[in-house]
This record gives sequence, C-alpha cells and structure tokens, in this order.
Amino acid sequence: MTNRLDAQMAFLHEADLLKSVTRATKITDASRGETSAEHSWHVTLMALILHEHAPSDIDLMRVLRMLLIHDLVEIDAGDAPIFGTHDTAALARAERAAADRLFGLLPEDQGAELRALWDEFEANESPEARFAKSLDRFSAPNQNLISGGGSWIDYDVTYDQMAERVGQRIDAGAPKLWSWLQPRAKSFFAALRGGPPTN
Amino acid sequence: MTNRLDAQMAFLHEADLLKSVTRATKITDASRGETSAEHSWHVTLMALILHEHAPSDIDLMRVLRMLLIHDLVEIDAGDAPIFGTHDTAALARAERAAADRLFGLLPEDQGAELRALWDEFEANESPEARFAKSLDRFSAPNQNLISGGGSWIDYDVTYDQMAERVGQRIDAGAPKLWSWLQPRAKSFFAALRGGPPTN
Repeated sequence: MTNRLDAQMAFLHEADLLKSVTRATKITDASRGETSAEHSWHVTLMALILHEHAPSDIDLMRVLRMLLIHDLVEIDAGDAPIFGTHDTAALARAERAAADRLFGLLPEDQGAELRALWDEFEANESPEARFAKSLDRFSAPNQNLISGGGSWIDYDVTYDQMAERVGQRIDAGAPKLWSWLQPRAKSFFAALRGGPPTN
Repeated sequence: MTNRLDAQMAFLHEADLLKSVTRATKITDASRGETSAEHSWHVTLMALILHEHAPSDIDLMRVLRMLLIHDLVEIDAGDAPIFGTHDTAALARAERAAADRLFGLLPEDQGAELRALWDEFEANESPEARFAKSLDRFSAPNQNLISGGGSWIDYDVTYDQMAERVGQRIDAGAPKLWSWLQPRAKSFFAALRGGPPTN
C-alpha cells in the first residue's frame, strides 16, 4: 500500500509537467509564450495583491488554493487559447478526465478535496470562484498591453471581441478590475488600428 | 497621486519579470532550466499538498504567502545556484535592495506587510519560515532525481555535499521530508558513481 507521502510526491512530480504547457499569452518582454506554471504563479500572486477589490467578502485562502490548481488539467488536456476555436464539449470531457487522473494520484481525502475545489472553480458560481475566474481572465490582457499586443495580434482580435469574450467575464467577478482595464485596452486598440485613442 | 490599484498593477507588472529568471534546476524532462516563476508556483503547491508533514502547527496561509513572494528579489539580484560560489554579503545586500525597490512599488501598508513577510522568510526562525525554507530546499533535489541529476551533474556534486548543503536545511524545518528523500538520493548518487546502491 502506498503511504500518503508517496502518493503526494507522485502527484507533485506529475504537476511539474505544467512547466511544459505553453500558453498563447506572451511574457511581458514578448520573447516567448508563458508556461501555464508561470501563469499559475502570477495569477495566484494577483489574488494575494488584489483581493481587496473583490466585489464581496471572499475567503482569500480558498481563492489562492483554487488558482494554484486551476490549470493542472492542461497537463493532459492542453491549453485552449481564449480566441482560438475549440470543440467545447470535447475539451470539457478531456479536462474532467485529466482531473480524474491527476487528483486521483493523491490520498483519497486530499484528492477529493482538491477535485471539489477545481469543480467549484469551473462552475464559476461561488464568490471565490467568480473572483478567481475573473483574475484568470484579467491576466492575459494586461500582459498583452505590455508586450505590444501578444495574443490579440496573433489571433487578429478586435476591441469588441476582447470586450465580449474577456471583458464581460472579468466584469462579472471583479468589476473594479474591468473598469481599470477597459480604458487602457480601448486606447491600445484605437492606436493599433491607426486612429486616435478614443475614450 | 497614484491610487492603490495603479500601484498594485505596477508591482504585478514588474513581478512578471520573474518569468525571465532561470534557475540551475531543470524541469523534469531535463530540456531546460526552470524559471523562478515556475519554481515559485511548484513550491507553493508543495506547501498546499505537504503541510500535514510540518513538524509543528503552522499557519498555512502564511506559508503560501511567503512562498509566492520568496524569490521576487531575483528579478534584480538574480538566482544564486546553491552549489555555486557567491559573495554572500554582496548577494544579501543586492537582495535587500531589490526588496526595497519591488515591495516599494506597492501601496505603503501592503508593501510593508509583504516586506516583513519576506524578512521573516529570510530570517528562517518562525515555524512558518522554517517549513517554507525547507520546502524551497526540498524542491530541487526531487527534480534532480527525476531529470537524471540536473544541477548535481552540472556542479559535480557528491552525496555528502548535497546532504550538508541541502539535506541539513530540509531536515531543520521538515525532517519527515528529508527522511523520505535521503534514501532516494543515496541510491541515486551510489548508482551515479558506478557502485551498488548503499543504504
């Protein structure tokens, strides 16, 4: 019988593979795509720094735990760029299978706890999940602004597409953060299209 | 006057540069050195998974917060590989200057709070700092075991050097984790030197 620590170490070794999953979003010097492990760190740090801007009282510890594990399923299911096209149902199936496998490596009680946390994140209903999901969406546009456009350029995205696919989701769980980002994104897209910044 | 969110975003943008700091430790497929951002994520995840093995009651939230920020100073001061040779005093000065600059980007109350947390980590005296430091040391040897030696090979390290420079430090704050690692490391080094595994 495997003891608890053996099982936990097997999980942690497998989790290390998130360092090999690359996202469409570039690091701020635009030299390469960030890895999902790097993103997971930065978005968890965002929660630590920005939690005072959540629209209601939240359990910060729950948000940090959620964000630390939110992308682990990409080890098996890969990263799905937000402006790409996907078979949404097939992706959801692949991610659930990944969650079964990965959290299944842990001792049963701990695996069940983290799986429930991941399910809560995906369901996007609790205040903690909504704030965490909004931070996850808030991350890439900020890096795109700094890195000269990043995935917006690669996917030929317009301001309206960004506002619809990303902005509305940030606004749903962290309206103050969308208020901060929106004028900056508008100016960026206006300059990109060659017109004067509108706002 | 800069408002709180502007200051927090300036800090988070700067923190993104930790994705460009490369460590001597390789990711588990040995294809490249991991970045300090990736390491920061994985070691924070380690704390979440392994905190039950801490030798005394610890405030897990404090450990998670410490580990999320523990390497930020490397943005200015660089990563100092544990088996390299350094001017320890000069490195400590550079890291303190980096902490002044980076945490100084935040709103004053928040910057002071995180700076105190980083100082606590560095002092390695509180139960939380001791456990966090031990996890930080526990991380690289595990990746070296999986990646075929990693920084142990690059720096021509012996088992005794590893046990002294790394093992004792893991043992100081997380003796159960060193007990788990020690026989595995011994076997690895024995096989590396061509002899039969000793234990």
